[in-house]
Amino acid sequence: MNNCKRLARRPREECGVCGVFGHPDAAKLTYFGLYALQHRGQESAGIVSTDGARLYEHKSMGLVPEIFTEEKIQNLKGDIALGHVRYSTTGASTITNAQPFTASHQGLYLSVAHNGNIVNIRELRERLEKKGAIFQSTMDSEVVVHLLAHNLSKGLDKAIVETFSQLEGAFSMILMTQDRLIAIRDSHGFRPLCLGKLNNGSYIVASETCAFDLVEAQYIRDVKPGEVLTITREGLDSSCPLPKKKQSFCIFEHVYFARPDSDIFGVNVYSCRKKMGNILARECSIDADFVMPFPDSGNYAAIGYSQASGIPLEMGVIRNHYVGRTFIQPTQSMRDFTVRVKLNPVRSFLKDKKVIIIEDSIIRGTTGRSRIKSLREVGVKEVHMFISCPPTRFPCYYGIDFPTGAELIAASKSVDEIREHLGLDGLYYLSVEGLVEATGCDADSFCLACFTGDYPVLPDKKFHKLALGGL
Amino acid sequence: MNNCKRLARRPREECGVCGVFGHPDAAKLTYFGLYALQHRGQESAGIVSTDGARLYEHKSMGLVPEIFTEEKIQNLKGDIALGHVRYSTTGASTITNAQPFTASHQGLYLSVAHNGNIVNIRELRERLEKKGAIFQSTMDSEVVVHLLAHNLSKGLDKAIVETFSQLEGAFSMILMTQDRLIAIRDSHGFRPLCLGKLNNGSYIVASETCAFDLVEAQYIRDVKPGEVLTITREGLDSSCPLPKKKQSFCIFEHVYFARPDSDIFGVNVYSCRKKMGNILARECSIDADFVMPFPDSGNYAAIGYSQASGIPLEMGVIRNHYVGRTFIQPTQSMRDFTVRVKLNPVRSFLKDKKVIIIEDSIIRGTTGRSRIKSLREVGVKEVHMFISCPPTRFPCYYGIDFPTGAELIAASKSVDEIREHLGLDGLYYLSVEGLVEATGCDADSFCLACFTGDYPVLPDKKFHKLALGGL
Amino acid sequence: MNNCKRLARRPREECGVCGVFGHPDAAKLTYFGLYALQHRGQESAGIVSTDGARLYEHKSMGLVPEIFTEEKIQNLKGDIALGHVRYSTTGASTITNAQPFTASHQGLYLSVAHNGNIVNIRELRERLEKKGAIFQSTMDSEVVVHLLAHNLSKGLDKAIVETFSQLEGAFSMILMTQDRLIAIRDSHGFRPLCLGKLNNGSYIVASETCAFDLVEAQYIRDVKPGEVLTITREGLDSSCPLPKKKQSFCIFEHVYFARPDSDIFGVNVYSCRKKMGNILARECSIDADFVMPFPDSGNYAAIGYSQASGIPLEMGVIRNHYVGRTFIQPTQSMRDFTVRVKLNPVRSFLKDKKVIIIEDSIIRGTTGRSRIKSLREVGVKEVHMFISCPPTRFPCYYGIDFPTGAELIAASKSVDEIREHLGLDGLYYLSVEGLVEATGCDADSFCLACFTGDYPVLPDKKFHKLALGGL
Amino acid sequence: MNNCKRLARRPREECGVCGVFGHPDAAKLTYFGLYALQHRGQESAGIVSTDGARLYEHKSMGLVPEIFTEEKIQNLKGDIALGHVRYSTTGASTITNAQPFTASHQGLYLSVAHNGNIVNIRELRERLEKKGAIFQSTMDSEVVVHLLAHNLSKGLDKAIVETFSQLEGAFSMILMTQDRLIAIRDSHGFRPLCLGKLNNGSYIVASETCAFDLVEAQYIRDVKPGEVLTITREGLDSSCPLPKKKQSFCIFEHVYFARPDSDIFGVNVYSCRKKMGNILARECSIDADFVMPFPDSGNYAAIGYSQASGIPLEMGVIRNHYVGRTFIQPTQSMRDFTVRVKLNPVRSFLKDKKVIIIEDSIIRGTTGRSRIKSLREVGVKEVHMFISCPPTRFPCYYGIDFPTGAELIAASKSVDEIREHLGLDGLYYLSVEGLVEATGCDADSFCLACFTGDYPVLPDKKFHKLALGGL
Repeated sequence: MNNCKRLARRPREECGVCGVFGHPDAAKLTYFGLYALQHRGQESAGIVSTDGARLYEHKSMGLVPEIFTEEKIQNLKGDIALGHVRYSTTGASTITNAQPFTASHQGLYLSVAHNGNIVNIRELRERLEKKGAIFQSTMDSEVVVHLLAHNLSKGLDKAIVETFSQLEGAFSMILMTQDRLIAIRDSHGFRPLCLGKLNNGSYIVASETCAFDLVEAQYIRDVKPGEVLTITREGLDSSCPLPKKKQSFCIFEHVYFARPDSDIFGVNVYSCRKKMGNILARECSIDADFVMPFPDSGNYAAIGYSQASGIPLEMGVIRNHYVGRTFIQPTQSMRDFTVRVKLNPVRSFLKDKKVIIIEDSIIRGTTGRSRIKSLREVGVKEVHMFISCPPTRFPCYYGIDFPTGAELIAASKSVDEIREHLGLDGLYYLSVEGLVEATGCDADSFCLACFTGDYPVLPDKKFHKLALGGL
Repeated sequence: MNNCKRLARRPREECGVCGVFGHPDAAKLTYFGLYALQHRGQESAGIVSTDGARLYEHKSMGLVPEIFTEEKIQNLKGDIALGHVRYSTTGASTITNAQPFTASHQGLYLSVAHNGNIVNIRELRERLEKKGAIFQSTMDSEVVVHLLAHNLSKGLDKAIVETFSQLEGAFSMILMTQDRLIAIRDSHGFRPLCLGKLNNGSYIVASETCAFDLVEAQYIRDVKPGEVLTITREGLDSSCPLPKKKQSFCIFEHVYFARPDSDIFGVNVYSCRKKMGNILARECSIDADFVMPFPDSGNYAAIGYSQASGIPLEMGVIRNHYVGRTFIQPTQSMRDFTVRVKLNPVRSFLKDKKVIIIEDSIIRGTTGRSRIKSLREVGVKEVHMFISCPPTRFPCYYGIDFPTGAELIAASKSVDEIREHLGLDGLYYLSVEGLVEATGCDADSFCLACFTGDYPVLPDKKFHKLALGGL
Repeated sequence: MNNCKRLARRPREECGVCGVFGHPDAAKLTYFGLYALQHRGQESAGIVSTDGARLYEHKSMGLVPEIFTEEKIQNLKGDIALGHVRYSTTGASTITNAQPFTASHQGLYLSVAHNGNIVNIRELRERLEKKGAIFQSTMDSEVVVHLLAHNLSKGLDKAIVETFSQLEGAFSMILMTQDRLIAIRDSHGFRPLCLGKLNNGSYIVASETCAFDLVEAQYIRDVKPGEVLTITREGLDSSCPLPKKKQSFCIFEHVYFARPDSDIFGVNVYSCRKKMGNILARECSIDADFVMPFPDSGNYAAIGYSQASGIPLEMGVIRNHYVGRTFIQPTQSMRDFTVRVKLNPVRSFLKDKKVIIIEDSIIRGTTGRSRIKSLREVGVKEVHMFISCPPTRFPCYYGIDFPTGAELIAASKSVDEIREHLGLDGLYYLSVEGLVEATGCDADSFCLACFTGDYPVLPDKKFHKLALGGL
Repeated sequence: MNNCKRLARRPREECGVCGVFGHPDAAKLTYFGLYALQHRGQESAGIVSTDGARLYEHKSMGLVPEIFTEEKIQNLKGDIALGHVRYSTTGASTITNAQPFTASHQGLYLSVAHNGNIVNIRELRERLEKKGAIFQSTMDSEVVVHLLAHNLSKGLDKAIVETFSQLEGAFSMILMTQDRLIAIRDSHGFRPLCLGKLNNGSYIVASETCAFDLVEAQYIRDVKPGEVLTITREGLDSSCPLPKKKQSFCIFEHVYFARPDSDIFGVNVYSCRKKMGNILARECSIDADFVMPFPDSGNYAAIGYSQASGIPLEMGVIRNHYVGRTFIQPTQSMRDFTVRVKLNPVRSFLKDKKVIIIEDSIIRGTTGRSRIKSLREVGVKEVHMFISCPPTRFPCYYGIDFPTGAELIAASKSVDEIREHLGLDGLYYLSVEGLVEATGCDADSFCLACFTGDYPVLPDKKFHKLALGGL
C-alpha cells in the first residue's frame, strides 16, 4: 500500500478482466490472458485463485510481466482463477483500488473483477452506509460485494439478480466464489465480454478474444447484454434476468481501445479500422506526396486510406525502441525533446513533402502539437491530418477516462480552431455515418454519446459533484 | 499486497502503536516513535495522517527505516498522525493485515492502531456478518471499525463506549479521525500505553516511554485501564466509561518484551531486570568461574546476578555484527553453523571453565541446545543456566505470540527434562514470588497466566477452533 | 564486476560511440547520443568525462536509460565526455569488458571507446606481454592504450600514428585525454563515424547521424577513412597519416544495422532500404493478396516492394507492446508460445490468403520457422518470403557478431533447403548487384565479404584459434 | 563500476584477506572466512577462484552477505579461492579499487589480495610507467602484479623474491595462480596472517584466527615475518628470502582492530583487552557509582577495570538494534538526534550518578562529545572517561586509516584540552608501558609509532604529497 488514500474522487478507468474455470493451470492461463489484455490497463494487476478451500491472491502496481513471477503464479493454487488489469490517469492511483476485490461473508469468499462504470454507485453506497457499512476503497466492486452480502440470505443466484438489477451504467463483471465463476454483462452491453473454451474442455471468460488466441482457446460466443452466465462443475448455466435495455455497444472500442487482432461485438477490429480509412478517403480526398501514421496509432486506417486513395503509404518517423519510462531531463536549449527522444522524423525523406497523417482520435490535442512542429523543423511543406472518428465532444460515463469539458479539445473548439491549435494545413474528421458504416452494423447498436452527447443512461446527480474531488 | 490470503487463521501478535496530535511534523515524529518501538514488531509498519480534509497513508512489509523515506514522510501531510508496527511469527503474513486499519463511513474516516488481542472477536464478527457485514482481513481492528460504524448514529463518543464495552481481552488502541486522536486501554490494562507532551505543547501517545525519549517528549502519565482519552484542538478529555475489571498488567513486558530504557507500569525495566538477577542469586547460588549472558538477552539479569553473588561477569561469546538476515548455506560438514556464524565463543578464554549463563526465558528451547553445544566444543567444563522468570507453561491469549502446547517446552517437560534436552549441567528458574518481588509491586497487579494458567478472562470457545486454522 | 572472467575468448560485437568536446553539459549530451545509438549495443554502456583535472566515470551492464540517472550524469563533470554502448551475444559478458576503457600513464589519462574489430590484436598483445605488459580484460582497447603508452615518449600525436598504423581491421575509435578528443577511423572505413556541431559551436562525434538529430547538432561530415581528427580548445585539426587502404564500407549497416533515420556513408538508410524493396520486386515479382513485414524488421523494404509491385501492404501480425524481457513459462500444451506472446497473426484477416513476407536478412533461421508456423495455424494459404539482401554465407571479422560456419544457415544450406527448413512456399533473395544498386554507390566502395567471402583484410592465424575459446 | 575515478589520492585502508587451497567448496569457505573478517573492511568484497583452467570472479561494493548469493558462490568454481574485504573512509571509493586484483600475463593469471600499505609504492609505480606501464587503479596490488610480470621470465619463485624485496612497508598478501596459493608477509610483520588446516586436510590462510573458527579449521601457526609460504598440490613450501627487518607488530590490532575472539601475534585479544582494563584501574583508580562502556567498544577493558577496581559494571545506555544505515533527518528542534536514535541512556538509572566510561581509543573526538552531552541531559552528576591506550598522536603509514595532523585530536590538544573539549569531569589514558604489559610481550615486538612517532620505516617523500590529493 502506498501513498495517500483518496476515498472521494471517483477514478473512471478502462479495465480488462479474465477468468478461468476448471483448469489445473488456472492462474497461469489467467496470467497469459491478462498479458494479452495489458493494453486495457497498465497501472495495476491482480489475480485471485481458489482450490475450493482457501483463497490465494497477488495484486500489485505495475505491468503484468513485472508483477507476476513463476513463483508467485505457483502460489496461486487451485483450478479457478480470476484476473484484472486496471488503468487510471490520476497520479494518486493506489494499490487500495487494485482488483480483483475480495471479501468474505459467513464463510463465502467473493472476488470481483469489473470493467465499466456504474453511474448510480454513489446513491447505492450512501444507502449502504446508512445501514452501517464501512468502505475501504472507492471501487464500484466494493459496493457490489456489499449489496450481494445484504441479499445473500436468499441464496447467491437471487442475490445476484437483486444486486445487479439495481446497478445503472456499464459493467462487464466476473465473480468468483469457492466453487464457481459467474460472468455478468449489463443490459446495454457497453463493454465487451466473451466466452471461450480451452483445450481440456474448461472455460475462459475475457474482455477480448485476443486473450483466447494466446492461450489457444476457441472463441464460443459473447456474453450477451443482460446475461448472467454461471460456470460450475456441472457446466454452463445461462439466464437473462436483468431488466431489458437498449443495446449500446461502445464504438470507441473499435476506434481506439480494443486490440486489432480481437473480434469485438462480432466484428474484426483490424478490418473495421481499415474501412474507416477507406471511407475517410471517400469522404475527403486531397492530393499529397504520401500518407503516414505518426507513429502508429493510425496504422490501420492509414493503410485503408492509402489503398482507397492510391496515395503511397510511408513510415517517415522512426521510433526509438529503447525509450524507457523515464529519462533524464534535457538541457534548456533542447526544444520539443520529449517527442524527439521517442520519434525522429527522417529528415532527408520528409523535406519539402506534402504529407497526410492519419490518427485514430484527438482527445486533448496536447502531444499532437509538438509532433507537427517536429515535422516542420525537418522541412515538411504541408501537413494535413485525417482522424478516423468524429470529433469527441462529450465525456464518457461508461468506463473510458475521457477528460471533462475544458480539456476535451473538441468540446470547446471548432475543427478549424483545432487545426490552428495543432499547426496543421488541413484537418478532417470521419463522419458519424462513415464510422458506423465501417463497423458494418446499424447505428442503433452503438453508444455514440462521446460524439453526439446522446447518453443511453444518465449518471445520478451526485456523480458530477464527486468528479470534482470534494470529500 | 502479496501472496495468499488467510481469512481464517488468527495470528496473535505483539505490536507497537504511536500517535501524535497537533504537531506540524506529526508523521515524522510518529515515524521516530515507531523507530523506538521497532522491537515490538518487525514485520510490517504503517502511518496514516490527516490534514482535516484528506487522509494520507503508507503501509508496507519490512522495518521502519526501510519502509519510510524522506519523500514518503513528506507526503504524509497534516498535524495528526497514527502509526503501527506489527509482528507475526507466521510465514503467511501479508500486507492485507498491516495496520493502521482505515475505513470511511458517511464522510467520517476512522483509522485504528491496535496492540493486544480481543478474545471474543469471532463472536462479534459473526454477529456483524449476520447483519450483512463483509470482511477483507482477519484483523481485530476491522471488526472494531464495523462496530463503531453500527453505533455511529448516536455520535462518536457513545459509539466508542458501546463498542469497547463489548470487547473482551487486551486492547491498547489508538483511534484517529479527521479531527481527533483517541487512546483507549482495556480495563485489565494488559498492554502498556502512555501519554507524553512534545516541546510545542502537542501530545503524543505510545506503547512505551522509550518513544518519548527519542522525540524529546515529556512523559505525563500512563493511559489508565478502562480509560478513553480524547485529544482534540480543545485539549485532553478523559473518562473511564468501560466496565471495571481486575487489573492485570502483563509481567512479560518486564521479563522480555519492553525495552530496558522504558518505564513500564511505572517501573524502570532495566532496574527491574537487574533485581530479577539479584533475587535469582539469592534463591540459588552456586560456585562458578564466571557469569555470562549468551549473547545479550540476559544482560541485565546477569549484571544483577554477578553483583549479588560476587561471581565475575564476562562476555565470553563474540557476536558478528555484520550477520545479515540471510546467508548462504554452509557445507554439509559444518555443524551448528547457524549459531556460530553469529556467535563465536572465545576458545582460549572459555576452555576448562565452569560457566553460569543467564537467560531471560526459555520458550521453545530450540536454539539454546546448539548454543550449549558450541560451548562444549571449545572445552567449557560445566554449563549452568539461570532463567530470570519461572517456566512458561501456558499460552498467552492477550497479544504475545507464545506457541501452544507441544511447542512450549515447559508445558510438557519438567525442569530436569529441559536441562537434559539442552545439554546443561544445571538449570534454575526464578520463582513467581521472586519475579513479582523484582517489580516492587503486588502480585495482584499482574497477569501471571503464562506461568500459572490463571487467566483473567477466557477466550470464547470458537477462539480455540480458529487457532487450528480451519476455514 | 560480475561472474567469471573470460580472458581468452574474443567477443566480436557491434558497438556505438559518441564524444562531446567543449560543452558545459558534455556528459548529458553524450548520454542522449548513446540513447539514440542504443540499437548498436544493449548489453552495457559507459560514459567518462573530464574537467581537465580529474576523470569521472560511470559504466554498468544494462540499457542507457537504466544505467544513468540525473544524479549520475551530474557527477560526470567537465565539458569533455566520451560514451560507449556495447553488445555481445555471449552469456558471459561482464562489466570488466564495458567501455570506455581508461588508464593513466605518467599523469596522462587515456580513455578509449571503440567500434569495430582489430584482426591482429592477439599478435600485438603477445608482443606487449613479452615486454612485461599485464592485461585485465580481453578488450582491443586495452591493447591500444598499452601501445600508446609505449610510444608516448615521442608525444601523443606521434604515438597515435605509430600505434594505429600497426592495427589491422576495423576501428572507428574515439580517444579522450584531459584536454582533447581524438576521432580515428581505419583506412578501410568499415564502420561509420561522423562529425557534428552543437548549438554552442562545440563538437560532437558519433557512430550515426541519428545521434545528432536528438541533441540538435548539425551534421558536418564523416570522419574520413584513415583520418586522425583532433579536437582541442584551438579547434579542429585533421590529418590522414595512416597507411592508405582499399575503401570497404560495411554494406550491412544499410541492410540491417543502422537506424533508418541515419545517413550512413552519405546515403539515407530509409531510402536505401525502400530501394532494396523496389529492386526485389523488379528481380522477382509474384502474385499475392498482400505484402507484409513480420513484424517490422522488413518494414521499409516491404513499402518499397509494395509500391513497385502494386501488391497492397498490410500489417497482419499484431505486436504486444507490453512484452517484458522475461515472462513465465507457458504450460506444456501451449506450442510456439514464445512467438505468439509477442506477435499475434490476425486470424480473420489472414485466413485463406497468399502472403508475401519481407525480411531484411536470415542469419540463423531459428525464429523464422515458428513464425511461419503461427501463420499456417491461422489458415494462411501460401507464404512467400523475400529477403532484402543476398544469402549471408561468411562470418564477419570487422565487428558484426555473425555466427561462424554451422550456425550461419546460408553457409551450409541452399536457398531451397532454407525454404524447406522454414516451411515456406517460396523464398527469394536480393542479388549482390541489386543490393549495391540500392545504395546508389559503386560496388567498389563496400565490404561485401559476408555475401562473397572476399575479405579486404584477413585476421592473423591465432585469431581463429582464439575464437574457439581455448585458454 | 561507479562514479568518479580517483587515480591520484591514495586511500590507506585496513583490509582482510582469506584464501583456501584444495577444497571442493573453496569459494564457499572463503566466503565464510570473509564473513568472519567483515569487521576489517565493510566497503567492498571480492572472491576469485580457479579450476586450473579458467578464473571465476565476483567483486562488488557492499557487505559480504549482500554481495554473494548461493548462485554467485556456485559460479565460483574450482578448489582454489582467494577473497578480500576492503574498507575506505573516503566517499569516492569505487569498485575499480575492489580486490582481489587480477591480471593475465602470457597465459598466467595472477590474483592478489593485500592487507597493509606499501610506503614506496609511488616510486615503484613511476619507475614502471617509464618502462611503458599503464595503470587502471590506485591499488598497491596493481603495482605488485606489474613488478611480478616484469620479473616473470626468471620463473615465479624468483619473480616473487625480486618483487617483494623491493617493497617497503606493510604487506600481508595472498597470491593466487592457476595452481597455487602463496602467502607473503613483510619482514616487519605489521599485519597478522595465519595458516590453518581444514577438516579434509586442505589449507586456509586468513588475516585472523576467528575465520578459522567459523569454518572449523585448526590454527597451525602464523605466517612468519619475511616468509613466502607456497601451497601447491605437493603441500606446503616455506622460505624466508626477504631482507630481515626489525619485528614491528601493530599493537593497534590488540587495542581496537582485531576481533576479541581472535588470537593475534600469539595472544588472545579478549584477555589482552581485559588486562588493559586491569592495568588502567591500577594506574588510576577513582571512586564512582559504576563503570560502563558507551556503548560497547570498551566492553572488555570495562570488565577488566570493574574486576580490578571493585566498582560495579553497568550497561546504562541502550542500543536500538534496528537502526538502519540511513534514517530520515529529524526536525530542527531535535538536538543530538544522531546519537540518541542509536543509543538511549537509561534516564531513571543514570540520574545523579558518578559514572566511569571506558573507551578503547579517541581518534577525532567528534562523536564522543554529543554522547557525553546526552548523559548530562538525563542528569548524570559526574562523567570520567578512561581510555585503554595512550593518546594517538601520529598518523599510521602501515594500513590503518588514521587521519592526519589536524584531525587527530591528540596531535594538537593536551589531555586536559581533550577533556574540556569532550565535556568530561576527568580523562585518563593508559600508559605505553601499561599497554605493552597487557600484551604479555616485549615492547620491542611492536610498532608503537601512532603513540610515539617512532616509525620503523618511513614513506618516500612523494607519499606525503600524494596524500594531499594532487593529480
